[in-house]
Amino acid sequence: MGITGAFPRFDHVGIAVTDLDRAVEDFSNRLGVKPESREAVPADGIEAVFFSLGAQSLELLGSTRTDSAIARFLERRGEGIHHVAYAVFDIEAELSRWRSGGSQLIDSTPRLGSRGRLVAFIHPTTEHGVLTELCQLPGGDGSE
Amino acid sequence: MGITGAFPRFDHVGIAVTDLDRAVEDFSNRLGVKPESREAVPADGIEAVFFSLGAQSLELLGSTRTDSAIARFLERRGEGIHHVAYAVFDIEAELSRWRSGGSQLIDSTPRLGSRGRLVAFIHPTTEHGVLTELCQLPGGDGSE
Repeated sequence: MGITGAFPRFDHVGIAVTDLDRAVEDFSNRLGVKPESREAVPADGIEAVFFSLGAQSLELLGSTRTDSAIARFLERRGEGIHHVAYAVFDIEAELSRWRSGGSQLIDSTPRLGSRGRLVAFIHPTTEHGVLTELCQLPGGDGSE
Repeated sequence: MGITGAFPRFDHVGIAVTDLDRAVEDFSNRLGVKPESREAVPADGIEAVFFSLGAQSLELLGSTRTDSAIARFLERRGEGIHHVAYAVFDIEAELSRWRSGGSQLIDSTPRLGSRGRLVAFIHPTTEHGVLTELCQLPGGDGSE
C-alpha cells in the first residue's frame, strides 16, 4: 500500500498499560478490531501491540522490565496515554527542523523502533507536556 | 466533503495547555500548519483550537474558568495529552455498545461539543486510563 495523505498527520497514539493481554482484549472489544501485530522491543524493555485504525494505529505498550521507561511511567502516572506519533517522510530532515524550532530531542539521531520503522522521540518539556514521536513511513526516504 | 475511511478511526487528540495563544503558535510551527478553527465552549469553561491533520485533528484545550475540567487537569498533571476521540457514524448506537461492554460513561447521552458535533465522553477508569471521546461525524446519523 502506498503512502496516503499528506504530512503532517498522526501515525499512532501509544497507551501504557499494566496488563498487556488484558488490555489487548479490552481494546479489541471496544474498537471491534483484532490486533495487527505484537512484538517485543528488548532494547526498550517493552512489548508493543498495534491495532490498525485506517491510516493510523493504536499502540498498547506493556513493560517487560522494572526499569523500563514504561514501567516508570506506570509507576508515576498509572495507565494512560503515553505518547503521540507523527508520520514523516524524511525523519532526519524533520528532526533537524524540530530541533531548530526549539524542541529538545530525546533521540538526536533516528533509531530502529517497532514495526521496523525509524523513529525518534522528542521531550515533552518543549512540547507542552506531550511526549512526541516522529516515525518514518516505510519507503519514506525512498530507500525501501 | 464526504466521510472517508471506515470506523474505527481516530477523530482527534486533545491536548490541555496553560497558555492557549502560546501553544497555538508552538504547534503551528512544529506541524507547519495554521489552526483551522477556534471557539469558546462556555458550558465546559474551555476554548478549543483545532488543527487539521488529514482526516484527523489536533485539539488544543485552554481553560477559561478556574473550576473547569481542563483547569483541574492542568493543576493535577500539568500540560499534556488530555483525551483521544474516535469518529463514529451513530453515536447513540456506539455509546450503547460501549456501555454494554463495561464502559463507564461520563455522558450517558450525547451532547453538543465543539465544531457542532455530537459528542460523549467515557471515563478513563474503564479504558485503561484513557479519557475517551466518541464524536459523531457530520451527517453521521443521516440527518444532517
